[in-house]
Amino acid sequence: MIQEKKHLPKRSEDFSEWYNRVVLFSELADYGPAKGTMIFRPYGYGIWEEIQKAMDKEIKARGVQNAYFPLFIPESLLKKEKEHVEGFSPELAVVTIGGGEELKEKLIVRPTSETIMYEAYARWVQSWRDLPLLINQWNNVVRWEKRTYLFLRTSEFLWQEGHTAHATHEEAWEMVEWAIQMYAKIYRDYFAMPGYIGRKSESEKFAGADTTLTYEALMPEGKALQSCTSHDLGQNFARAFGIKFLDKEGKSQYVFQTSWGLSTRSIGGLVMLHGDDGGLRLPPRLAPIQVVIIPVKVEPALIKEAKRFEKELIEEGVRVKCDDREGESLGFRINKWELKGVPIRVEIGGEEIKKKELTFVRRDTGEKQKVKAKEGAKSIVKLLDQIQKKMLTEAEAALKKNTQNAASYEEFKTIMEKEKGFIRAFWCEDKACEAKIKEETKATTRCLPLDAKKEKGKCVYCGKTASYQWLFAQAY
Amino acid sequence: MIQEKKHLPKRSEDFSEWYNRVVLFSELADYGPAKGTMIFRPYGYGIWEEIQKAMDKEIKARGVQNAYFPLFIPESLLKKEKEHVEGFSPELAVVTIGGGEELKEKLIVRPTSETIMYEAYARWVQSWRDLPLLINQWNNVVRWEKRTYLFLRTSEFLWQEGHTAHATHEEAWEMVEWAIQMYAKIYRDYFAMPGYIGRKSESEKFAGADTTLTYEALMPEGKALQSCTSHDLGQNFARAFGIKFLDKEGKSQYVFQTSWGLSTRSIGGLVMLHGDDGGLRLPPRLAPIQVVIIPVKVEPALIKEAKRFEKELIEEGVRVKCDDREGESLGFRINKWELKGVPIRVEIGGEEIKKKELTFVRRDTGEKQKVKAKEGAKSIVKLLDQIQKKMLTEAEAALKKNTQNAASYEEFKTIMEKEKGFIRAFWCEDKACEAKIKEETKATTRCLPLDAKKEKGKCVYCGKTASYQWLFAQAY
Repeated sequence: MIQEKKHLPKRSEDFSEWYNRVVLFSELADYGPAKGTMIFRPYGYGIWEEIQKAMDKEIKARGVQNAYFPLFIPESLLKKEKEHVEGFSPELAVVTIGGGEELKEKLIVRPTSETIMYEAYARWVQSWRDLPLLINQWNNVVRWEKRTYLFLRTSEFLWQEGHTAHATHEEAWEMVEWAIQMYAKIYRDYFAMPGYIGRKSESEKFAGADTTLTYEALMPEGKALQSCTSHDLGQNFARAFGIKFLDKEGKSQYVFQTSWGLSTRSIGGLVMLHGDDGGLRLPPRLAPIQVVIIPVKVEPALIKEAKRFEKELIEEGVRVKCDDREGESLGFRINKWELKGVPIRVEIGGEEIKKKELTFVRRDTGEKQKVKAKEGAKSIVKLLDQIQKKMLTEAEAALKKNTQNAASYEEFKTIMEKEKGFIRAFWCEDKACEAKIKEETKATTRCLPLDAKKEKGKCVYCGKTASYQWLFAQAY
Repeated sequence: MIQEKKHLPKRSEDFSEWYNRVVLFSELADYGPAKGTMIFRPYGYGIWEEIQKAMDKEIKARGVQNAYFPLFIPESLLKKEKEHVEGFSPELAVVTIGGGEELKEKLIVRPTSETIMYEAYARWVQSWRDLPLLINQWNNVVRWEKRTYLFLRTSEFLWQEGHTAHATHEEAWEMVEWAIQMYAKIYRDYFAMPGYIGRKSESEKFAGADTTLTYEALMPEGKALQSCTSHDLGQNFARAFGIKFLDKEGKSQYVFQTSWGLSTRSIGGLVMLHGDDGGLRLPPRLAPIQVVIIPVKVEPALIKEAKRFEKELIEEGVRVKCDDREGESLGFRINKWELKGVPIRVEIGGEEIKKKELTFVRRDTGEKQKVKAKEGAKSIVKLLDQIQKKMLTEAEAALKKNTQNAASYEEFKTIMEKEKGFIRAFWCEDKACEAKIKEETKATTRCLPLDAKKEKGKCVYCGKTASYQWLFAQAY
């Protein structure tokens, strides 16, 4: 069922059609029958499993425990935090019938779990001894969409959401920063996806948060992808839900809360960032299959050598597949694995057997190299590491190149019309300017980088005094 | 927030109240705000994570890949297989509003995923080369319940569901048997929960299956728990959804399918089977915390030794917690961990420090033993293994003792009134007899054991010829 590469448009010519076809042809995902839904096929879900494995380890090492809260939120509960419900109400899926009967109270399919979790937190937290309360869950959430954009915009998606409660704001803020730094590490080390860490503007922050931190990555169309967020919820939900504790002095206090999440949307970013005209290019650490071994003909001697090498790689902990599927030409098989973005292809033919060699082909650069068969496994491990690093370096260079300063609004507009990418510019932090810039250039404030320095400047739009340079970009 | 043990009724006096309180007090779970829902708290979810880890490994080793299909099933799709929709329609949750609008077609929140998956299978399977198609998913499902019985009966639960398609019935049947044997292994080796593997009767099988295999375990009230199932779907769904392939001869054929699942219900069984008047007793292989180290006083020298031993156990791969929480008496802490069913408690006091010893207390038997501190870690590993085996042996003896033969219906009724448990009895396989027995004794056919031999007998109810002895029991 793999579609042929020749049906893939060039990435530079029709990006969104290229994207859809790469996702479908490489069997990462498929459309679901209900509007806005998608199917995570094994190859796509395998990437999510690698992401989960890497993140779950970090989350647990921080002392956060996994739990699972209900899918259904009674409508009255969702309405308890005013800004929160306003933010989410246009995109809710609502259950009105259960067990054959009309329900007295409608149930909302969770768009996020703050309200359902905090109702319980209010019962569980009594004393300072119960804090910090550190919980994470891996689950599905639903935010209504009419048109599916695979991975990037779907009614249902998968994510993890961390929700913590603390005795002090200082401790909560440490958690907010920890989460975004942990995500940044995962994005850099696993996705090979560099980005900017920063604070969202008032109009772009999460509904119900005091502060939202974000990781903004650059996609090849010059658009930014908000890749995850970490929220300082202050005491907003604590007040709405009555989450109080007795402190060491016996005084009743509201807790300080955080929430933070990273979703399967990230896989869409991975595809867009690294893919090329040949299809996917997966960074080794997230590739469900890191190495594919191809006997150039389906002959016993070649298959035997392929199986031997496969076993050796498995012992080294490499995720490997031997493709000896009948009825497909060598060219077809090569294209198939190129489309699927497997980092290294190993070819075994008569020549290789004779010379006791293996031929490695890198997906990222297309380079071929011959390696002594007995050194094959070690060379693969080393090469996977090199590829991972190379992909990050490449993406970092692209990010740097596509982040420009705009001293004037004219310059700003020119960049946004032509190259796009990130623009660093002074902004007075007035919502009106932000809205005008968006209206006129489609660019939104992406974030104020965490490491931004206070300067003396003038707002790129209105010319009034501004203290910080914000990052702007068009976004998905 | 741990409730005290003294508020726990004796298990033998009020089993269902004992069960509820053990689950709540030990912090395995809590009630959700919507009817029929529950919260899996970290301690309960931790057990599920251990189950997932063990099963996921087995599933992948069999070549089955994980994927994820949508939560929402269009109503028309669910209706495609007649028996299937009839079986599930009384317990559906239905979304009628999405994104603020009344939906044209109602969406069913999946009660199980056959229909949503097979719609895609029909597109993905074209040739014999695409078979077998072996997919599993870990997800939530919803079957409407008005009253929650924590873990055992809830509107939403977590499970895995495997769904495979094959070219021949023989191959499909091998998968059906593999799944139930894999489950049996997990139940024996991890849950320490012995049971009977067998075939369900026509009236008890899955809606849409040709044959259902089940694993039936015995609970302390003398009731059976259907602990998981594996279905031979034959070509029923293949015909309904048009899942066809071209065989090697180029002929179009319907595939043969299987589905199999094990849910968080199993955790309810675990609690019921092993718990006692002191609370939970967790088998080591599923215990989120296998060892708790308790410094008998919160004093630096004791805490230092506790932390040293904790580190040693972590290095051995033991899941360990050091409880040096302030403000709780020794007795309170001991009761707390007893209630939580941690397999081994390690006590460290002045005596232990002086003699360079550690005191181990087993949760399963209450036995105390002194061990040289330097041999502590190795002894723990060995003891955990002993406890795991002992718990299985104990449960096996109880199962054997509570499985009786009934030669006459009088005998059958007496057993079901008094001891309960499993009854082995001839049954003519007529639905009318099955229904009558259920009406008069509350006992249902649990299964025909896979290893049952053909014999000459008479139906325990009607006296007509019967070839096999079935297992009967009351069930949850």
